Amino acid sequence: MNADKFKAHPGKSFSLADHDPRDTGDYKNKKMAKAQLQNDIDQMADLQYKLYAENTRAILIIFQAMDSAGKDSAIRHIMSGINPQGCEVFSFKAPSAEELDHDYLWRHYSRLPERGRIGIFNRSHYENVLITKVHPELLLRENLPGIRSVDDVKKGFWEKRYRQINDFERNLAENGVTILKFFLHLSKKEQKKRFLERIEKADKHWKFSYADIRERAFWDDYQSAYEAAIKHTSTDHAPWYIVPADHKWFSRVLIGNIIVSTMEKMDIHIPEVTPEEKVLLEKGREALMEE
Amino acid sequence: MNADKFKAHPGKSFSLADHDPRDTGDYKNKKMAKAQLQNDIDQMADLQYKLYAENTRAILIIFQAMDSAGKDSAIRHIMSGINPQGCEVFSFKAPSAEELDHDYLWRHYSRLPERGRIGIFNRSHYENVLITKVHPELLLRENLPGIRSVDDVKKGFWEKRYRQINDFERNLAENGVTILKFFLHLSKKEQKKRFLERIEKADKHWKFSYADIRERAFWDDYQSAYEAAIKHTSTDHAPWYIVPADHKWFSRVLIGNIIVSTMEKMDIHIPEVTPEEKVLLEKGREALMEE
Repeated sequence: MNADKFKAHPGKSFSLADHDPRDTGDYKNKKMAKAQLQNDIDQMADLQYKLYAENTRAILIIFQAMDSAGKDSAIRHIMSGINPQGCEVFSFKAPSAEELDHDYLWRHYSRLPERGRIGIFNRSHYENVLITKVHPELLLRENLPGIRSVDDVKKGFWEKRYRQINDFERNLAENGVTILKFFLHLSKKEQKKRFLERIEKADKHWKFSYADIRERAFWDDYQSAYEAAIKHTSTDHAPWYIVPADHKWFSRVLIGNIIVSTMEKMDIHIPEVTPEEKVLLEKGREALMEE
Repeated sequence: MNADKFKAHPGKSFSLADHDPRDTGDYKNKKMAKAQLQNDIDQMADLQYKLYAENTRAILIIFQAMDSAGKDSAIRHIMSGINPQGCEVFSFKAPSAEELDHDYLWRHYSRLPERGRIGIFNRSHYENVLITKVHPELLLRENLPGIRSVDDVKKGFWEKRYRQINDFERNLAENGVTILKFFLHLSKKEQKKRFLERIEKADKHWKFSYADIRERAFWDDYQSAYEAAIKHTSTDHAPWYIVPADHKWFSRVLIGNIIVSTMEKMDIHIPEVTPEEKVLLEKGREALMEE
C-alpha cells in the first residue's frame, strides 16, 4: 500500500480539503482489507515480541479525531492480538485539578511507554491545541502566567505551543521513541449518521453523550484547528497521517499497514549476548549440571 | 472443566504436595486444549467489551510463580485477543528507592485497574511475603519501625502481613474489584529443563539471568513460603488457584477457563439508559434532524 499519499509531508503546504474522508486507497472492498489487516496484526505481534526482547526503544502511537470517527474501535481491531504486556493504552479525558496544576505536557509525559513497549494515546497532548483552541476559555483553568482572560491570549500563542510540542516529541525521538500520529479524518455527514445510529440502537446508547452533539456545532473550528496543528507539527521524527475514516475497514487496514512498515524499518532484533553474559551462561549451565 | 479441584479452599487445610505440577486435568492432549482456549479467548473479548461499557467493576488477576513457570507466556497467549484499551498489565520488579519509602502496598495500590478494565499483576504484593520471607534481609530496606536487623522480625510478623493483604483485597472486593490469584505450580525438575533450554537456544538467551539460578538454591524455602501464603490468603473474595505448570498448554487452558467462568458469574451487561438519558437521546435526535 502506498501510505505516503496519506502522510502530511513536513515543510509542504497542507490542506485537509485535499484529503477525501471517503477514500479507500487501492482497496475495492472490505474483504481484501480484512485479510491484509489480519496479516499485519500477526506481523505486528512478532515485531512487538522482538521490541520487548530488545528493550531499548519504544513506540508511541497517537490517535486524534472528531467524535465517532472510530478511534476506539480502530484500537480494538488493530491492537487486539498484541500481547497486552507490551502495549499500554491511555485514554486522556478532561484534565483533573491536580493535572491542571502542572504544565499541559506533564500528564502525558508520565504516561509514555516504557522501553520495549508500544504506547497508545487515545487523544493526547494535541487536545491542548485542539479543544483548547476551539474553546480558549479552557485555557483559564490552566492558571498560566499572564493569562487572566481570553483576551490575554495573544497572536503567536498557539504557534508557541506547536513548537513546544515539537520540542517534546523531538526529545522523545532522540531518546529512542518512534512516534506515529494518526488523524482519523471523518466527514460531517458520516458523523451525523453515526450519532443517529447511537441514538437508534439500544446496545450503542452507552456511547452516546449529548455533549458530543453540542461539540458538533463547532465542526468548522475543529477542522481548522486540526489543519493548523497538523501543518505545524508533522515532522520527520513524528509524522502525521491523515486516515480517511468514513469507511472504518479502510482506516484500520491503513493504520495497521503504517504501523507494521514503520516497525519493519526500525530493524528490531532479539539482542545477542555480550561476552560477559556468555561467561554467565556457561557458569549457569555448569551449576545446573552439577546439581 | 472442573476448576474447583485447583482451588485452594478457604478455611481448609492446604498442602502443595497434594497438587501435581504435571496434572493435565481432563485433557489428554494439547490439541483439544488449544481449541478450548481459543473459544475462551473469544468469549473473554466479548465479556471484556461489556465490562468496559458497564464501567462499574474491574477485575484484578494476579500471577505468581517460580522463574520460568510460564507467567509471561501465559499472559501473552491468554490475553492477546483482548482489547489492550481494556487491559493493563504491570510487571513488578525490585522496588525503587521512592517505592521503598512508602508502605509495601503503596506501589500496588496505584497500579490497580480502573473501572471497566482487567488489570494483570505479573508478580504482585505477594512478593512481600515470598521473596522477602525467603530473604528477610530485604525487609531492612523497607525502613520499618522497630526493624533494624533480621532478629527484630518476631513470630507473628508474616501472619500480620497475610492479614494486611487480606484486608487490602477485601477492601478492593467491596469496592467492585473481582480478584483472581494464580500460582503457576512448576516442578523443580521442569525448571531445570527450561533453564537449560534458555542456555542452549540463542533466541532465548535474552531471558536468561544468572540470578535466577542462584535463587533456585532456595527452592524449598520458596515452596514453603508459597504454601503458607496461599493457605493464609485464599479467601472467598480473592481465591488462589494452583495451576499445574509443567505443561504450559494445560496452564493456559485452565487459567482461561477460570477467568471466563468468573466473568460469566459476574453477570455483566451493557448498561441501559436512565429516564434522564432517554430525554437527552430524544433531544439529540431532534437537534441532528433539524440541521
